[in-house]
Amino acid sequence: MAQPVTYRVEHDFLGDKQIPAAAYWGVHTARAVENFPISGTPVSAMPELIRAFGFVKKAAATANLQLGVLEQRKADAISRACEQLVEGRCHDQFVVDVIQGGAGTSTNMNANEVIANLALEVLGHEKGRYDVLHPNDDVNASQSTNDVYPTAVRLALWMGIDRLLAAMAQLRGGFAAKAEEFRNVLKIGRTQLQDAVPMTLGQEFSTYAVMIEEDEARLREARALIQEVNLGATAIGTGINAPHGYAELACKLLAGQSGIPVVKAHNLVEATQDTGAFVQLSGVLKRVATKLSKTCNDLRLLSSGPQAGFGDIRLPPRQAGSSIMPGKVNPVIPEVMNQVAFEVIGNDVTVTMASEAGQLQLNAFEPIMGWSLFKSINHLTNACITLNENCVKGIEANHELLARRVRESITLVTALNPIIGYEKAALIAKTAIATGRPVDEVAQGLGIMTREQVEALLVPEKLTQPVRLQE
Amino acid sequence: MAQPVTYRVEHDFLGDKQIPAAAYWGVHTARAVENFPISGTPVSAMPELIRAFGFVKKAAATANLQLGVLEQRKADAISRACEQLVEGRCHDQFVVDVIQGGAGTSTNMNANEVIANLALEVLGHEKGRYDVLHPNDDVNASQSTNDVYPTAVRLALWMGIDRLLAAMAQLRGGFAAKAEEFRNVLKIGRTQLQDAVPMTLGQEFSTYAVMIEEDEARLREARALIQEVNLGATAIGTGINAPHGYAELACKLLAGQSGIPVVKAHNLVEATQDTGAFVQLSGVLKRVATKLSKTCNDLRLLSSGPQAGFGDIRLPPRQAGSSIMPGKVNPVIPEVMNQVAFEVIGNDVTVTMASEAGQLQLNAFEPIMGWSLFKSINHLTNACITLNENCVKGIEANHELLARRVRESITLVTALNPIIGYEKAALIAKTAIATGRPVDEVAQGLGIMTREQVEALLVPEKLTQPVRLQE
Amino acid sequence: MAQPVTYRVEHDFLGDKQIPAAAYWGVHTARAVENFPISGTPVSAMPELIRAFGFVKKAAATANLQLGVLEQRKADAISRACEQLVEGRCHDQFVVDVIQGGAGTSTNMNANEVIANLALEVLGHEKGRYDVLHPNDDVNASQSTNDVYPTAVRLALWMGIDRLLAAMAQLRGGFAAKAEEFRNVLKIGRTQLQDAVPMTLGQEFSTYAVMIEEDEARLREARALIQEVNLGATAIGTGINAPHGYAELACKLLAGQSGIPVVKAHNLVEATQDTGAFVQLSGVLKRVATKLSKTCNDLRLLSSGPQAGFGDIRLPPRQAGSSIMPGKVNPVIPEVMNQVAFEVIGNDVTVTMASEAGQLQLNAFEPIMGWSLFKSINHLTNACITLNENCVKGIEANHELLARRVRESITLVTALNPIIGYEKAALIAKTAIATGRPVDEVAQGLGIMTREQVEALLVPEKLTQPVRLQE
Amino acid sequence: MAQPVTYRVEHDFLGDKQIPAAAYWGVHTARAVENFPISGTPVSAMPELIRAFGFVKKAAATANLQLGVLEQRKADAISRACEQLVEGRCHDQFVVDVIQGGAGTSTNMNANEVIANLALEVLGHEKGRYDVLHPNDDVNASQSTNDVYPTAVRLALWMGIDRLLAAMAQLRGGFAAKAEEFRNVLKIGRTQLQDAVPMTLGQEFSTYAVMIEEDEARLREARALIQEVNLGATAIGTGINAPHGYAELACKLLAGQSGIPVVKAHNLVEATQDTGAFVQLSGVLKRVATKLSKTCNDLRLLSSGPQAGFGDIRLPPRQAGSSIMPGKVNPVIPEVMNQVAFEVIGNDVTVTMASEAGQLQLNAFEPIMGWSLFKSINHLTNACITLNENCVKGIEANHELLARRVRESITLVTALNPIIGYEKAALIAKTAIATGRPVDEVAQGLGIMTREQVEALLVPEKLTQPVRLQE
Repeated sequence: MAQPVTYRVEHDFLGDKQIPAAAYWGVHTARAVENFPISGTPVSAMPELIRAFGFVKKAAATANLQLGVLEQRKADAISRACEQLVEGRCHDQFVVDVIQGGAGTSTNMNANEVIANLALEVLGHEKGRYDVLHPNDDVNASQSTNDVYPTAVRLALWMGIDRLLAAMAQLRGGFAAKAEEFRNVLKIGRTQLQDAVPMTLGQEFSTYAVMIEEDEARLREARALIQEVNLGATAIGTGINAPHGYAELACKLLAGQSGIPVVKAHNLVEATQDTGAFVQLSGVLKRVATKLSKTCNDLRLLSSGPQAGFGDIRLPPRQAGSSIMPGKVNPVIPEVMNQVAFEVIGNDVTVTMASEAGQLQLNAFEPIMGWSLFKSINHLTNACITLNENCVKGIEANHELLARRVRESITLVTALNPIIGYEKAALIAKTAIATGRPVDEVAQGLGIMTREQVEALLVPEKLTQPVRLQE
Repeated sequence: MAQPVTYRVEHDFLGDKQIPAAAYWGVHTARAVENFPISGTPVSAMPELIRAFGFVKKAAATANLQLGVLEQRKADAISRACEQLVEGRCHDQFVVDVIQGGAGTSTNMNANEVIANLALEVLGHEKGRYDVLHPNDDVNASQSTNDVYPTAVRLALWMGIDRLLAAMAQLRGGFAAKAEEFRNVLKIGRTQLQDAVPMTLGQEFSTYAVMIEEDEARLREARALIQEVNLGATAIGTGINAPHGYAELACKLLAGQSGIPVVKAHNLVEATQDTGAFVQLSGVLKRVATKLSKTCNDLRLLSSGPQAGFGDIRLPPRQAGSSIMPGKVNPVIPEVMNQVAFEVIGNDVTVTMASEAGQLQLNAFEPIMGWSLFKSINHLTNACITLNENCVKGIEANHELLARRVRESITLVTALNPIIGYEKAALIAKTAIATGRPVDEVAQGLGIMTREQVEALLVPEKLTQPVRLQE
Repeated sequence: MAQPVTYRVEHDFLGDKQIPAAAYWGVHTARAVENFPISGTPVSAMPELIRAFGFVKKAAATANLQLGVLEQRKADAISRACEQLVEGRCHDQFVVDVIQGGAGTSTNMNANEVIANLALEVLGHEKGRYDVLHPNDDVNASQSTNDVYPTAVRLALWMGIDRLLAAMAQLRGGFAAKAEEFRNVLKIGRTQLQDAVPMTLGQEFSTYAVMIEEDEARLREARALIQEVNLGATAIGTGINAPHGYAELACKLLAGQSGIPVVKAHNLVEATQDTGAFVQLSGVLKRVATKLSKTCNDLRLLSSGPQAGFGDIRLPPRQAGSSIMPGKVNPVIPEVMNQVAFEVIGNDVTVTMASEAGQLQLNAFEPIMGWSLFKSINHLTNACITLNENCVKGIEANHELLARRVRESITLVTALNPIIGYEKAALIAKTAIATGRPVDEVAQGLGIMTREQVEALLVPEKLTQPVRLQE
Repeated sequence: MAQPVTYRVEHDFLGDKQIPAAAYWGVHTARAVENFPISGTPVSAMPELIRAFGFVKKAAATANLQLGVLEQRKADAISRACEQLVEGRCHDQFVVDVIQGGAGTSTNMNANEVIANLALEVLGHEKGRYDVLHPNDDVNASQSTNDVYPTAVRLALWMGIDRLLAAMAQLRGGFAAKAEEFRNVLKIGRTQLQDAVPMTLGQEFSTYAVMIEEDEARLREARALIQEVNLGATAIGTGINAPHGYAELACKLLAGQSGIPVVKAHNLVEATQDTGAFVQLSGVLKRVATKLSKTCNDLRLLSSGPQAGFGDIRLPPRQAGSSIMPGKVNPVIPEVMNQVAFEVIGNDVTVTMASEAGQLQLNAFEPIMGWSLFKSINHLTNACITLNENCVKGIEANHELLARRVRESITLVTALNPIIGYEKAALIAKTAIATGRPVDEVAQGLGIMTREQVEALLVPEKLTQPVRLQE
């Protein structure tokens, strides 16, 4: 038999409301749950955000204690409650939808209520005894949603970026190892999908590693921007209702307690309304996505076949590729990265529009920005890991095919260019394509060069680097 | 003490794999779960898609029975299994990630395995006895992922659109009721945020209803496009491995059994690779989002204040607006619609890029298209409902303020235009703004018109419609 | 020696201003030119828009005449002036920037001034004699920018779409002709860039024709939406300052005089602020772009090589492909279509954001919508023409290579599936790939089928269509 | 009578072609003009790009001279020709369309031909005497489109960014001056369009200056990325056909001769295919656009009215706002910035898609990236200038209205929060709104505080900064 649910009664300016007795959240959270039944995904889907709220509210409580706003007993209880959030407790109590109106107020109210009831528990009181310790007057003291919410979002993103950077570094390592493995594998490079000139497969794979390396640098720069927080700004950046010195102190405490090097923004009015750092971060994630998608496009192209495609490389088989075509193996791992990239690029438009829609002293649309960035970061992280583990590590070169193609390639004619000029070289190429005969034969046949001259020039290994004129 | 998990062993071309004995899914699903740990959201988050698979696989089984591909006993068992999916059973067995490589193969394989094991259950066999009834040879007979997956996605979207249309109709009704309620409330219309000419608040609200009505029509048109399915196309549209007549029969059965008026595409090769209907649908959803966002921007503008804003209307208070500013009430319901709109517009870019990335005989990126469209449709549906229920229904006009503004408005000078000409009217307006004196006084003072002439023209009620010249 | 410029003096509420004596534009245009030195591209870059203004202003003048607002002599002069714009005269007098603030007011003012001065010319007066015939009081009588500008933009887009439809029809014809030409050319189809099952090159090319055909239908639907105009709405849709009956009459005249089947919008207040038709049109153009880009991606893939690529087809050479690699020929025509597609997709975001930013009774951002749509339509038109003329018409099949690949393809194993089951077929495929031996040999070697059995099934021609079970 | 056009004959691998005798461009340009009749805008619309080509080709010629690839006489003639391009001569000879297939080859060929013919002129030869000095063998020696084109685009963007930074600095100065002017003007700040708490108009305007300042920093960072060039990479980054040491030397010469601090990329293979710097730059331009659009949205909101809006500030009138409503003045200058922002955000999607579409050793879509970035930069530059000159400089505060609103504002109740707690303060606010009575009266009436207590707290000037607890 189901246990009867018991309730406590809380109230706000709209009236009384029954709250399940076991709930750590309260009336404001309940209103928000009713107002925003949008995605069905609760804020608890972002554990980093809840941990970040733990850090922020603890720093605020500590600052309030030191500045005489909160008495020791309350500050200690709040701090202990915050630590529990950081440790992962009660995350299931963050029940408001990730897509919500109100500039994050509902998430902040949810946090205030959970922390208050956890703190009441620490103090030996029942849930809902806000006369003893109040979600707004105590937990939220010297604060506004408008400073704590964006600060917490920034911290959460910081944690997420850290994981993404680690995943990117692994993937870079995977590509670099392949570049080393393939350093002497000659192949024909391609531009505009047409055969171009020789290179090594190692050179090709090294570019993927270099691209990621550069993107890691860009991501670190973007991360530095989100380290700037507006804690202490309160409602609109003027610091109303916070004591003098609070902003500096709270930011310093936050950095110390969280281990994340946040700094107080220079102009808090600006910092409270500005979401430029989110746009910048999203733009960099888009860049990362764009390049990883291009890389995966390349992997799919290079492994196309097995008979009627490029066939330069083989990806490791990971699962049956088709429910109808037996033995077909598809590049499913690169394909999932492509899709994550498309999602991230779409998210960037969402973030941009949300940022542009900010008005006057606040941007009310930070929840969708935070959620979009969270998804972009996490999905990219996971896709990098599976791409490295389940694809890149197992890539093999199709040595025989690559070597044969280099030998037979008409594109080698490019190397004759500096000697015989563009026009004669073009004539050789055109004739070779039309007749299917090799370049050296054609050059000889047309009386342009002797076979020996051609052969001396057409050493593919030499063609993968600048000409040594003195040779 | 935790019960020991027991396993059965399944195998694919990569080797053997332990599958939890209780799982209805099998080895192909297990591979996919390992390969795509991306979003953490399983396909079961899209119940319509699972129900759609139930319909599609049942139609296929019935067609296979009628064409002699499947024997009666197997076809019956498969059909019964499919009905269970439609009824909502075993949805938790769809465990592959919504973001997956492989053109939906993993979802199809997941469905094949769950249906096979449900059918084995019907037949009184243990799970995994694929020698009796096989996920690929029987459940997937005459099929390929490349026809059943897009067909199922289309059906699922159709169901979702149906719900969205209902929610839009409700919201339209809400606005229409307000238009009726406010039909005689005069106010000053605004263009470019500047006071323009008189209108009624009813006219203003009627536009919101009309916009939604038009969007419903567009959405129905887009829905008609996704009714066209490629069931029977198998791998690339040529119908390989399906018996002659199968495509026509399976599509007809699907329409009959599901109650959704699907039709077979004319050119199955084209239909198998083309995702234009998804792009069109996404574009229409973007249009819907764009207009709803504009409407919510208006609601937020019109209700701005309460003292230092437009103040034309009052939205019903739904929750405390601020953790620091007591008594502040914010337009949180319109704000959540804005954010959903930004998400939908971002999703449209995702869908577009995924569509553009299709290659040759297939688009491998349908999973992200399906997932993006699913989110767009569902979030819009939910946002329409909350907007109507929690906001529009409770909107009140600020009668006194609106009336006063009409009386005092300088914009009434526009009505003098046809009589005295643009240049003299502009002079009156300029003088009235500079001096703060009313238009009739100024017109008189400048000797352009008598007060009586002005007053005869400046009847605001007449200014909300074309001039009756004979009056 | 340069002729001294002579001036006339015009004035507006900001004061007097010198206007070059030869200019047909006047003071309002001059202000706009100073205010909007943005892109350097004047409105004259959109000749259809100027012609459309000619049609709209003439219809308005005729309606004003019939309703007694304008006297015959003025109406005739204005009509004659408008006809001159339609005929292409004085387009260089539209000097305001295509990117302009003010909801199109500057373009409308520019039109009013040019038409007024042309009409004055007709009447035998000097330019600037607005006491005789006034840009606002006469040319703009019963009108507002807010109805004539969007009406003119719609007409201009209609003309542009007409040209685009013609270009798409030509391109469709080009693809259809190739589909016919290649109807018996067997090849291996590909999904996910991996060899799949046989098809004909004709089937492949027919899809391109079908895609375009469907897009033409979508485009005609979108064109129907922009036929709905708000002429007669004046400032905000209430028809202020227009005589009763004007809207109906003016719209009817406009349709008759222009030959473009415009109709009056049902709700003029809604129609004046709504830009949904632009968003819809832009979305459809995006769809067109997406599919054409996919098609061109395919053409580039299929023609990749000549030695180290797919090589299914050859595109006609159009220009030297490289400044360094002699004889290299690149798919430059498909590449330009890709780029146009990327532009169109970007333009769609611009249009969407501009639409979303509309406020209350008007969308002030129609100029950027009109300009973006104009570019999308025109560039697509031109790209379709060059794609057909300079590429599709000259495409050749690589018969020998295609035939050889079909013969040797392992993918033929799919056809064995219904006979021997998925798992045995997969074993054959895996073995064939590993050993490089043909499918029939492997099937025999593994003792699964006799060579005769295999050969009876593996008739590629039969594999491009459903199985005839009775055969 | 029209002068007969005379021709010279040039040829390429497609055959002979007549070239107007006066043309500096040649056969490759002529082919491109025929192939790409897309936008009608020739490359000459980007003068910075032509100047950049002048710098690049001169640096290449100098390096070729020093490394023995070109003889002195040719190198000198080429250098002199390049200088003429830098000086602005012959820009009208760059006639290929800005939207072109072929990765920029046509622009490079156009440049090679113009420079060759200018150099032939220097040497006293007729145009077309390529036997004396050849566009490819001499002007393009040691080069490929794939290194010189992206290098030139980067240089051109660098020049454009320089101008944009200057325009942004001016606009920042304009806002900063207003912030200073309004430093003591008290007003009610707003969040979510609802009245919030007091601030100064100076604080509000200072945020606009700070935002721009931060964006200037971001733009300088992005500019640093595009300083990295791949000159010397030739076809695919391997340096084929360039002499050893050329890349280092040419880059160094380019920096010295152009005055733009370009550096050679570390990995030339990567640098040749990577367009990440363009994506990053575009993302930053999008950020700039997003914030400027938000700022202009604010300006339009704050100046809304004059009677039925916010009315905090007045923008300087710049032109008649309406063709029908005399005296109406609209915020046309901010509106044009909004539209430029929408365009820039759309361009970012174009750039992103073009970047993602790069394949293997090259991105063939750099022309649309260059053109999109060029437009974004130039339009933003021009919009910043007009925004500062024609709007910001003339903004006035509505002192009387702002002061009255602060006096009467219910939002002042926030300041009571720390003393009486959130719940009692909410009660006061609710009562004050319902009754229309001032906060101090209500607080007294409800017996919560004495009027003296309230008045001591409610000193608006104090409310624009943190609380000094010791006071």
